[in-house]
Amino acid sequence: MRPLPFETVRLSDDGRLCILDQRMLPGREEYIELQTAEDVWHAIKDLAVRGAPLIGVAAAYGFYISVKDIDDDFLAGCRKVRDYLDSSRPTAVNLSWALDRMMRVAEAGGPDVKVRLLAEARAIHREDISMTELMGRHGYGLIGPSTGILTHCNAGALATSGYGTALAPVYAALDAGRTDLRVYCDETRPLLQGARLSAFEMAKAGADTTVLTDSMASYAMASGLIDLVFVGADRIAANGDTANKIGTSGVAILAKHYGIPFYVVAPTSTVDLSLPSGKDIPIEQRLPEEVTEKWYRERMAPEGVKVLNPAFDVTPSGLISAIVTEKGVIRPPFREGLQGIIDG
Amino acid sequence: MRPLPFETVRLSDDGRLCILDQRMLPGREEYIELQTAEDVWHAIKDLAVRGAPLIGVAAAYGFYISVKDIDDDFLAGCRKVRDYLDSSRPTAVNLSWALDRMMRVAEAGGPDVKVRLLAEARAIHREDISMTELMGRHGYGLIGPSTGILTHCNAGALATSGYGTALAPVYAALDAGRTDLRVYCDETRPLLQGARLSAFEMAKAGADTTVLTDSMASYAMASGLIDLVFVGADRIAANGDTANKIGTSGVAILAKHYGIPFYVVAPTSTVDLSLPSGKDIPIEQRLPEEVTEKWYRERMAPEGVKVLNPAFDVTPSGLISAIVTEKGVIRPPFREGLQGIIDG
Repeated sequence: MRPLPFETVRLSDDGRLCILDQRMLPGREEYIELQTAEDVWHAIKDLAVRGAPLIGVAAAYGFYISVKDIDDDFLAGCRKVRDYLDSSRPTAVNLSWALDRMMRVAEAGGPDVKVRLLAEARAIHREDISMTELMGRHGYGLIGPSTGILTHCNAGALATSGYGTALAPVYAALDAGRTDLRVYCDETRPLLQGARLSAFEMAKAGADTTVLTDSMASYAMASGLIDLVFVGADRIAANGDTANKIGTSGVAILAKHYGIPFYVVAPTSTVDLSLPSGKDIPIEQRLPEEVTEKWYRERMAPEGVKVLNPAFDVTPSGLISAIVTEKGVIRPPFREGLQGIIDG
Repeated sequence: MRPLPFETVRLSDDGRLCILDQRMLPGREEYIELQTAEDVWHAIKDLAVRGAPLIGVAAAYGFYISVKDIDDDFLAGCRKVRDYLDSSRPTAVNLSWALDRMMRVAEAGGPDVKVRLLAEARAIHREDISMTELMGRHGYGLIGPSTGILTHCNAGALATSGYGTALAPVYAALDAGRTDLRVYCDETRPLLQGARLSAFEMAKAGADTTVLTDSMASYAMASGLIDLVFVGADRIAANGDTANKIGTSGVAILAKHYGIPFYVVAPTSTVDLSLPSGKDIPIEQRLPEEVTEKWYRERMAPEGVKVLNPAFDVTPSGLISAIVTEKGVIRPPFREGLQGIIDG
């Protein structure tokens, strides 16, 4: 695959953790250094670093830089850091998945535990890149002769340390020389990850890129502009129910109505077999000001009204045509497929 | 019905046309005077005055103030004003409907033609107020024991010169002493008429008001918060297909998926029997900057990407549970019902 024009996360050889501050995009490409567990916690909480797989990689590095100077009571310190970083965001399972991997290494102990923690974080990073390439290849097979691709939120290169999840098949198609694709990015209110991030990276990748408001997806589908939908996932329950950015379930319902395939692309680390269904997935509620004030020159709703601001919704598995993982494409019924692919 | 706390349009006794400048809401309640046909054209085009029924009233008054000082070649001047004002926005049929009523009076001529033009504009205004009261009464009957009402865009008092269309049943319910209603306003990107206008007038009316982004409607419905949907209409074709603010068709698809009644509330002046179906309704395409820049402190999409910005979409009649007009509630099949109610 072609090299990406930005680096979402990087641990330098001298142990400095840098991230691309995604809050500044698309206007400015700024990198910031995270030095403490608090820095990492806020970077995740405030969405400087976001996207379920990337949160996992950043948390692994963040865990390492937070514990590498602890000498007394090392394991207790590790546990404290683990719980603290894990509290930054509740929905993405990759966060606790990555932190648990780090904790297992910490618990194994030994004189070179810090070296092995660094190696584990680098392994999580390397695996993330490799998984996005595999998802890209599997997902590319689903594009076929399609040209109009809709995506919601950003599950692209900016959401991982590699080529993304939902957008990995697009990178694979561009790599294969496809020039006929049209990528439609739902702007994705309230945080505009589609307009700000997906459109940014797709345009950088040379894709024919169109931004639309979330409410225009039905119009775009009715007009025949959309052949398939690719979205990412923050957590997939054992039955295939998928938590993803708020609005995803609506896109899935529209896709079903218009007879358009709806694909979830996510690494197996996103699958949480401990949850039987989507109703058990915790949904993060965020501050009302994200809806009424953030980005704006002035407040865009009257003072005093109530505001809904769930960060995610759950798309029932019945609306999902297939789930694309690094290990292959899973078709319904998902329970067996997910179990098999995790076990395999 | 209770008096409204604002006046969307007013022609003073000395012939000055004032409108509430809706571009300034919810931050400022500013009234501006329109003195020329150009003023009226820009006020409609730039959405200082908006909402299909209100556009009709404003255009009628605008026609009157634009022709009242013409002495030579009066009828030719009237035709020019009619065509000019009619070009301000393409989708709302009320605009040409009101202008055509004015033109018929102009064409009838006579020595007191200007007096009769003023009377016609005032009649259009008076009828608009009275129609909203009747729609409110008919729509109130559909609320029944429901408490959670979702609306998209603004088809409230701010979209008419009376109590609104989609929100008229809510005003009727509040008047009847209902205190259990919860009104959910889709913010309605890109122009935010829901957050800025519907939430403004519902909160002023004392309703329990919640703003949500358009993409949260599915979450709200899945969570059991929504019992029914009321929306307005910009044009209704003979078969019941309804053009309304972009995103409306998506809300209708969601409502059908969740088994929630979806009601269109609009005066019969919105019905255009000359159009067999929705595919014949012209859809206004607006500037990309409304999506990428308007309201924001800085541009929220990368330079150079394409942007979709249709102002309306068409909801197929099959997704509509009933159409509420000032003459009563029409249930499917709509073709017969609409024909009958127009003829009656």
